[in-house]
Amino acid sequence: MKYTTILLVLFFVQFAVGEMQKPHFLMPVPQQFELDENQYRLSDTFAITVKGDCHPRLFRAATRTLRRLAGRTGLFFPQDFITAETAPDQAAMTIRVNRPGQVVLYENESYRLVVNAEQIVLEAETDIGALRGLETFLQLLEADKNGYYIRGAEIKDSPRFPWRGLLIDACRHFMPVDVIKRNLDGMAAVKLNVLHWHLTEDQGFRVESKTWPKLHELGSDGFYYTQAQIKDVVQYAADRGIRVVPEFDMPGHATSWLTAYPELASAPGPYTVERKWGIMDPTMDPTREFTYEFLDAFLKEMSGLFPDEYIHIGGDENNGKQWDANEDIQQFKKSNNISDNHALQSYFNNRILKILTRYGKKMVGWDEILHPDMPTTIVIQSWRGRKSLIESARKGYQVMLSNGYYIDLIQPTDFHYLNDPIPEDTPLSPDEQKFILGGEATMWAEFVIPETVDSRIWPRTAAIAERFWSPGSVKDVDDMYRRLDEVSFRLEELGLLHIKNKQMMLRRLTNNTDVTALEILVDVIEPVKIYTRGAQRAYTQQSPLTRVVDVAVADAEKAREFRGLVDAYFSEPAQSKLDKMKETLDVWNANHDKLLTTIGISPVLKEIESLSADLSACAQIGLEAIALVENGTRADEDWIKEKLETLEKAKAPRGQTELMIVSAVEKLVKRAGKM
Amino acid sequence: MKYTTILLVLFFVQFAVGEMQKPHFLMPVPQQFELDENQYRLSDTFAITVKGDCHPRLFRAATRTLRRLAGRTGLFFPQDFITAETAPDQAAMTIRVNRPGQVVLYENESYRLVVNAEQIVLEAETDIGALRGLETFLQLLEADKNGYYIRGAEIKDSPRFPWRGLLIDACRHFMPVDVIKRNLDGMAAVKLNVLHWHLTEDQGFRVESKTWPKLHELGSDGFYYTQAQIKDVVQYAADRGIRVVPEFDMPGHATSWLTAYPELASAPGPYTVERKWGIMDPTMDPTREFTYEFLDAFLKEMSGLFPDEYIHIGGDENNGKQWDANEDIQQFKKSNNISDNHALQSYFNNRILKILTRYGKKMVGWDEILHPDMPTTIVIQSWRGRKSLIESARKGYQVMLSNGYYIDLIQPTDFHYLNDPIPEDTPLSPDEQKFILGGEATMWAEFVIPETVDSRIWPRTAAIAERFWSPGSVKDVDDMYRRLDEVSFRLEELGLLHIKNKQMMLRRLTNNTDVTALEILVDVIEPVKIYTRGAQRAYTQQSPLTRVVDVAVADAEKAREFRGLVDAYFSEPAQSKLDKMKETLDVWNANHDKLLTTIGISPVLKEIESLSADLSACAQIGLEAIALVENGTRADEDWIKEKLETLEKAKAPRGQTELMIVSAVEKLVKRAGKM
Repeated sequence: MKYTTILLVLFFVQFAVGEMQKPHFLMPVPQQFELDENQYRLSDTFAITVKGDCHPRLFRAATRTLRRLAGRTGLFFPQDFITAETAPDQAAMTIRVNRPGQVVLYENESYRLVVNAEQIVLEAETDIGALRGLETFLQLLEADKNGYYIRGAEIKDSPRFPWRGLLIDACRHFMPVDVIKRNLDGMAAVKLNVLHWHLTEDQGFRVESKTWPKLHELGSDGFYYTQAQIKDVVQYAADRGIRVVPEFDMPGHATSWLTAYPELASAPGPYTVERKWGIMDPTMDPTREFTYEFLDAFLKEMSGLFPDEYIHIGGDENNGKQWDANEDIQQFKKSNNISDNHALQSYFNNRILKILTRYGKKMVGWDEILHPDMPTTIVIQSWRGRKSLIESARKGYQVMLSNGYYIDLIQPTDFHYLNDPIPEDTPLSPDEQKFILGGEATMWAEFVIPETVDSRIWPRTAAIAERFWSPGSVKDVDDMYRRLDEVSFRLEELGLLHIKNKQMMLRRLTNNTDVTALEILVDVIEPVKIYTRGAQRAYTQQSPLTRVVDVAVADAEKAREFRGLVDAYFSEPAQSKLDKMKETLDVWNANHDKLLTTIGISPVLKEIESLSADLSACAQIGLEAIALVENGTRADEDWIKEKLETLEKAKAPRGQTELMIVSAVEKLVKRAGKM
Repeated sequence: MKYTTILLVLFFVQFAVGEMQKPHFLMPVPQQFELDENQYRLSDTFAITVKGDCHPRLFRAATRTLRRLAGRTGLFFPQDFITAETAPDQAAMTIRVNRPGQVVLYENESYRLVVNAEQIVLEAETDIGALRGLETFLQLLEADKNGYYIRGAEIKDSPRFPWRGLLIDACRHFMPVDVIKRNLDGMAAVKLNVLHWHLTEDQGFRVESKTWPKLHELGSDGFYYTQAQIKDVVQYAADRGIRVVPEFDMPGHATSWLTAYPELASAPGPYTVERKWGIMDPTMDPTREFTYEFLDAFLKEMSGLFPDEYIHIGGDENNGKQWDANEDIQQFKKSNNISDNHALQSYFNNRILKILTRYGKKMVGWDEILHPDMPTTIVIQSWRGRKSLIESARKGYQVMLSNGYYIDLIQPTDFHYLNDPIPEDTPLSPDEQKFILGGEATMWAEFVIPETVDSRIWPRTAAIAERFWSPGSVKDVDDMYRRLDEVSFRLEELGLLHIKNKQMMLRRLTNNTDVTALEILVDVIEPVKIYTRGAQRAYTQQSPLTRVVDVAVADAEKAREFRGLVDAYFSEPAQSKLDKMKETLDVWNANHDKLLTTIGISPVLKEIESLSADLSACAQIGLEAIALVENGTRADEDWIKEKLETLEKAKAPRGQTELMIVSAVEKLVKRAGKM
């Protein structure tokens, strides 16, 4: 039985003696909420009505909510499409809003949700607040043997930060419209409100430009969004109360632009679309007027295409090599008293800012656009570290945090979860804190394709979303993981592939044979972290991302459970815990022989053969250590030394993955030495 | 271990003694082929070159082939995008074509593929033939402990029928573009070449019309394809050598048209988009000139949008009620000597045919358009039965078969597989047979949504595709099922959800708890067949399709295996077979108690509780019967009578599903009576 069931059982035991409240699955946790023993029992007469002055998106959202509720419960509800004309006067659930919301920064997203045995009332200032409340409503669905019900609750909720984003890089690997749409649905489910759409890169120019058509014609290999598709996505996002902020990276990260228009470059072409990852030299020439005429026309076109008030200009990782090597640019710097390349880039940024301002847009950029020459009307996105976040806020720039939310770097959920834009010990004054708009998780796409991207975004981004929405005091990691499992499961109804593609990838890796042994291994390994993957092996845009490392995820749940079990034993020893460890270790110990059979028919697995052997060896060591502990026998020094050496070697990555149970076995070995 | 592995083991045993050739996984089976012991060993230097005069689609297809090969093997191949400019002079694999193919009926799709230890050569008259050959090439990928290889082969292949289609109904439930695209990829993988896109229905008008915009504005609930999307899909299909034949159903099945333009109807409106399933009354008025003016403008627009030479006008299931009730129409019939409604519809069809002819299109329609008044230039699609197929061919109409390929009716794969457009005992002469173009599987969408549609189409449609492509003599059902398992698995790489959504749906049905017990039940049940589902329960377009019946599939593999095992025992009794049966029956017998726990927390499962109990009861009976057989004890009459009664009751559908193992247990009981 899975965790959920165990919890239910636990609940009935504990609830009966009045000790604790039945656990809830709200994520993000609301600002204020009380759950009670009331239940609104669902039946096939359940209906929703919408009242007040709202945008039509709320009718569509209410209809989708009804369909999701039907999908989960199998109930045949009477309503089909809820519209202003067909909404009944009276219904079990009433949604009441005051005014149409606008999909803009600082829009009111608050709501109030009351559920009792008789009815459900959702009230909000705007329909966007109501959308947020509908997601909370769905998280209150529970069941018992008599049927489904909405749990009694009184909730008053609003976000902690107004800018809660997810960046999707559609350039390193193209992400078709359906990938974007299902992730927008996932974002809405956890109350994120900004899709930061990274649309241009060295490796691809992904938006159709009618003004400069060679951009997408020559810069995309045919993989780009048409303007019709962009409008469709923007509309789809707006329907979910999500802003779309496009990023057009300049003056660096620009090889694809220069492939199409080499006359923009700081060094002679020709250029070709980049196939490798890294920081590349090709950079726009900030000293020629043509560059600004070109970008003026381009940004005018994009300003019309993207309705959001903000446009992101990137601005990161310009290595300055082309500028340094270009005599005209050096001369320009001298003539204009521009001291260094950072100042030259600020000159460029200021020219771009004027263009954007003319088209009614505000500028967002990465840390590197922060410079004394820039006015405080720009928004800084901090990727390099907390320092620039603090510096920006102190200097009066609005700023949001992405450092610590780089989900492409394969760090565990709790790392991101505990990374707070404004931690308790912030050095910022309350007035300075107001400049912090929120943050964004960033899904850079060097190592993801449509098949795997969901499993890198989800479920971790749900925990980040809670960080951006809920009070800073909500930071119980165990409780987060408990709720995350449920949220992750519910995200599947939106078409996200983060769970189901695991088995599919295992089937492919085992050539459609029994996946059990491989899965046991995969469940205790994680991909190498931070920037190790690209450093270990030369990848191109076309390299396969279908290996073991691609099915492994950032949070190896079984390994985390085992580490938790070992720690729990050390804080409170008990034979039952040792028995549980032994049960797990026995499975791992026996696994390698089984996996060998699979490796024999599936050569792609060859690269993890020694890793699999090490899992068995580690398990064997763990079993020996536990036997010593159980016998009260102190392990001798040589044994300890030998085993620790073996374990140390087992930490080496293989197939670009690492065993995540070694540290726990080390603890057992060390314990055996202290009996 | 799975079947594939067992087969490999079998092979090594049998191959060693020279008894049989290693089994292959080709589907459809080529017209002529020889496999040999050569192996082209794949390495990370593998490359493809394309020579001759071809359409650019072949470069894109070769690139996709390379990516699929890399995805399966994990090999890092050097080529990125294969183009005319970058194709190397020499490469391990050479594709050679004579001329650009056209995506039209009767285009040459033949190819020749030779694989030996040194090289792979694929030759074809057209690039479309080469596309077919690339799919065969991928089916020759195998592996041993030393790595991956392409199996030595000499293949000469061409299709048996020129029209090999899949109908997707995007009306009853809307199917977004990504659903269509992934299914086009699946079609290409099994060499189907016609997407019959059912775009208008009582329940929805799914194509944007600029001429008559109310059609999609009022007839679709907002769920329609824009013309840009249509063009994108047509281009995507053409890139895979697949024609797109749109269907605009008229004069019946037309409620959504009439919702937008009631002036087209044979009875006064207003109309609203139909929400229920069935044959509806609303029908266009064939007697008013406005109808033809309207359809002329509409078909002119659609003729420009869809490049294929054929347009399907439906024509089915006009119940004539509105015509009979309309005095003007009755008068029109009299004045024009039109004897009955069928003749009136032929009058209508002839008017439409004139319009289509004017726009360079040919007419396709269902059986009902067959009428002495219609010229033989039209194509008949036979859905009602073999009789109209034969009648059409004899009268000189081109015709294709869909009767027997209605995959929405949840019949097992072998039923469709053995349904041949030209069976051995056909009454048609060779000259008459030439009128049979092929056939189409039909995915009507009353009971499928994007989440489930793939599992209704696949893998059964792969077997139908073999029927349309391979020689009629290829009809070994066991061998088909063996290969189908592999083809089904490989279809997953195209993004199809037919396998992976099963676990997702089970998770939802079990409220994210252990799915094992539910899966054991689901693996031996099938949805009720033919038109029973809609007859048992009143569905609307918005009813949830997320219940047990929706995760059950047409071919319950575990049940089929058990039935096969029982039959195998009776043809050749052996204790090992009895032991295997007992093992399975023990699992089923114990399953109900386990599933009860899940049902207790997931009320949506309540409807299959008694079915689950019956599975256990049937298994218990089976075990008792086997015990009698093993003891050589003859069962007494009362026991047999009682058990057969119990089994009879167990056949009753519950939750719109049926147990598929009852007949096999009956056989065991009867056997026990004959000891």
